[in-house]
This record gives sequence, structure tokens and C-alpha cells, in this order.
Amino acid sequence: MMNKAGLTAFLQKSFPQVADDFQIDTVLETELSVCLTPQDRHLRPGGTVSGPTLFGLADVSIYLAILSRIGPKALAVTTNCSIDFMRKPAADRDLIAVARLLKLGRVLAVGDTMIYSDGMPDPVARATLTYSIPPKQA
Amino acid sequence: MMNKAGLTAFLQKSFPQVADDFQIDTVLETELSVCLTPQDRHLRPGGTVSGPTLFGLADVSIYLAILSRIGPKALAVTTNCSIDFMRKPAADRDLIAVARLLKLGRVLAVGDTMIYSDGMPDPVARATLTYSIPPKQA
Amino acid sequence: MMNKAGLTAFLQKSFPQVADDFQIDTVLETELSVCLTPQDRHLRPGGTVSGPTLFGLADVSIYLAILSRIGPKALAVTTNCSIDFMRKPAADRDLIAVARLLKLGRVLAVGDTMIYSDGMPDPVARATLTYSIPPKQA
Amino acid sequence: MMNKAGLTAFLQKSFPQVADDFQIDTVLETELSVCLTPQDRHLRPGGTVSGPTLFGLADVSIYLAILSRIGPKALAVTTNCSIDFMRKPAADRDLIAVARLLKLGRVLAVGDTMIYSDGMPDPVARATLTYSIPPKQA
Repeated sequence: MMNKAGLTAFLQKSFPQVADDFQIDTVLETELSVCLTPQDRHLRPGGTVSGPTLFGLADVSIYLAILSRIGPKALAVTTNCSIDFMRKPAADRDLIAVARLLKLGRVLAVGDTMIYSDGMPDPVARATLTYSIPPKQA
Repeated sequence: MMNKAGLTAFLQKSFPQVADDFQIDTVLETELSVCLTPQDRHLRPGGTVSGPTLFGLADVSIYLAILSRIGPKALAVTTNCSIDFMRKPAADRDLIAVARLLKLGRVLAVGDTMIYSDGMPDPVARATLTYSIPPKQA
Repeated sequence: MMNKAGLTAFLQKSFPQVADDFQIDTVLETELSVCLTPQDRHLRPGGTVSGPTLFGLADVSIYLAILSRIGPKALAVTTNCSIDFMRKPAADRDLIAVARLLKLGRVLAVGDTMIYSDGMPDPVARATLTYSIPPKQA
Repeated sequence: MMNKAGLTAFLQKSFPQVADDFQIDTVLETELSVCLTPQDRHLRPGGTVSGPTLFGLADVSIYLAILSRIGPKALAVTTNCSIDFMRKPAADRDLIAVARLLKLGRVLAVGDTMIYSDGMPDPVARATLTYSIPPKQA
């Protein structure tokens, strides 16, 4: 339904506060990846990236994966997230979220995402999110 | 171990990027409450507060509840969060997180928190977070 | 909509495989409690109760809390659970789950539950579950 | 550290109550799969498999994946689980859990697992579990 250019334009128009944080890298039918280059506002003492930043990246990656399948008219709302913080990301490296949809139902969508710190082989975080899809998508 | 003044000073010193977002309201042995007055940077289209803001408020509320019990020297790290977004918070109302510790073990602490939008009787979100407590706390 | 006798009868009729495991203790508008007396099939080595048993008790407690509000015709389905195992329950003590509904929406219900091992002051587990409520409840 | 035969023997010896429910299919360094053939005690009305059964399968699959790496002496304890139930499994088909370790730290291990109903392309459930690894493993 939406490709990389369409999703990027949608993000800029609908979420101007945060759109510049995110760069959509890859949009496949089975997988979508988004990159965030940490700025000062994303950092925490000890040279790491804040939890809310990782949460926000996880959220946007799955949200975009849903939109890539159902189009820009949907007002999907996050209803649940479970997130595991497994390793400390580097403050000066890009974060890359690789999201995939596990379910795209009539009222609920579920996706999970793995977040990597560029150059580290193991993920720094993983998350699963559920979205409620409103009945009217027009 | 730490009272309201001590926790407030610790937050200012250790997390200067975000300390001004949060006001510690109440510190009891069984419960700690923190308030956030939404600013433009916390908002999203449709007159609501962003998910990362709610996540950050949940995280800080339980983190402070742990510090109030084990003191300022600990470097507790969030390892897991499950969060449910249940209602849309008002953009122009304070958010209040009421946190309590459920477990304060040798290596793990678990707490949950209920987030209210000022003036609404039902919570807008709830979250449970786990923290890893480093072996040396001195 | 349903009181203790009604819920007990519903459980016996609809879930005969497990109904005998559970005894409904209290049904209030704000809270419902269910008790399980561990049997051999619920135990694990080391004198403790199995994870699936705790999960099942958490699930049934919130499910019954929903039915107490929307009546016996609903086919609510569990869509998500986050559960924290915080202490080891005693194998020879009753387990008591105290559930409360946090949201009862048109399509989703959310509840949390605290599980106690009789005689221990602190909870052995906590869980939050989400249920999808089918559009037709008649 | 442990191969399929070793893990199967360990399960029989340490968890005799449930070992017969599970058949270990594949043990790779990166992935472990376990199969459960539903019996009457695992079923629920409507021709489906119970939530506790799915939870138990998820739990055992990641537990075995940890043991395959750290050996049989460990007493890893589940501390947290988030599980999503996405589709209704068939009562008369095998359930297959495919688990992988995401983190194997000094005190915590994290794994996720995808559960399939044999013959259905999409997963019926997914789960992430955290285990606390005791300091002394000898």
C-alpha cells in the first residue's frame, strides 16, 4: 500500500515533531527497517541512549510496518508494548530497528522489532507492540 | 534512604536532560508519585501526549521508588517494561504516575505504576518495569 | 451482571476441565478474588508451583472479573499477558489471585492481578492481561 | 553444552510431571525447537488448546535453549514473560515452538519463541521470557 517515499512523506506530515529523528531504510513486505542517529536530546549519562528513545524507535518501526500494509488513512493506536533492554547502545552509533508484522487482523495488529546499535552483532533491545485498528479506516 | 528533597537533587544532578520534566510529589515507603506537565515536545497530533513521554514517566517513577529505598549510589538499569495504553491523555493536563515497589531483591527490583491524566478518574496507562541492580552498590 | 454463584456455575459448565481447580472467593464491582489449592499436577521439583498454574490462575481471575461485568454470553479471548514471577510460592499453601479491571472497552478489556501464597505478605506473582471482546455479545 | 539426547534425559529426570508432553526436535546453537501433541488435558471448549499449555510450551522451549548453552547444573528461574496469543491453534495438530536466545548474561538470560500449529503458516503465539541465572552454577 505504501512504499518508502510514501511512508517518509506521511511521517513528515503527520508527526512533524519527531519525523526528523527517523530515516526509513528498507520497506519489504515482510520487514521494515528504520534508523535513528542519536542526538544530544536522546542521550543519558554514561554515554548511552535513553529508554524513551528506544521505545519511540520500536513504536515507529512497527507503526510504519502496519501503514505499509494498510495505507495512510489508518489511525492505529498503540495499546500494549513489552520491551526488553538487553545491552547498552553506543551513544555515537546509529540505532537500527528491524520490524516485522506477526498479525494484521481486523481490529488488532501485532509486530515485533529488534533494535541494533550499528556495529554490534547482538541486539540492544527487542520489543513487541500491539495496535488497535479503528473500525473505519476511510 | 532518600526523601523528596534528596531524590529531586539526585535527579537534577544525574539526569539534567530530563529532570525539569518531572516533579516529585509524594515519597512514602509504599508509594511514590511523580508529575509531568506536558510541553510542546511531549505532544502528538490530536491533542494527546506521546507514548515515549508516558514510557519515560513510568520509568522514572519506579526508578525513583527504588532509589528511595536503596539510596543514590545504585546504578539500577531497566531490563524490561510492559506498558498498556488504555485511554487518551489530555494534552493540557498534568500526568501523574503513582508507583509502588513489588519486589526489591538482591539483583532484581520490580515495580508497577499507574499513570493518570489530572481530572480523569481512570488511569490512562499502566506499566510494570524490572531493574537489574548492580552487585556493588557502594 | 454475574455474581459469585453465577460465575461458579458458568465456570463449571464452560470449563469443566479446570473448573474444580478454582474457587471464587469474592466478587465485588472493583475486585474479584479466586483461590487455587495446589494439587500434585500443579507442582514442580523444589516444592513449588508451576508457571503454567500461576498463568492459568491469573488468566481465570481476570476473565471472571470481565464476565462479572458483561455477563456470561461473551467469548472474550486472551490476546496478551505480561507476568512477573517474583517469589517462590509454597507448594502446600493456597494461591489467591486478586484481580481488578483497569479498562472495559468496546473491543478490549485490560485487567491486572496480584497472586499471593497464603500466609506470605508479599505477592508471588503479578500479571496484566488483555482480552479481545467479540463484536456480538448476544 | 547439552545436545538433544542430554536435554531429553534432563527433562525426564528433572520434570517427570510434564516431560512426556514435550518432544525436543532440533537443537542448534542458534535455535531450539520443541513439539507438543495436544492431549485432552490441554484442550478447551471450541476445539482449541489452553493458554497455560501454550505458556508452558513457550517456557520449556527457552529454558531448554538456555540449558543447551550453560549445561544441566543451572537452576534458571523464569522471572518475566510477555506472551501474545494471535491465532487459534487447532486442537488436533501438533504445536511447535521455535526458540532462540537473545541474551545469555551473567545473571539474566532472555529468549523469544514463536509457536506454530502444524500446517498453519502463521504463528499462533509468540513469547519473550527472562530467566534469572543463579550465581553458583556448580
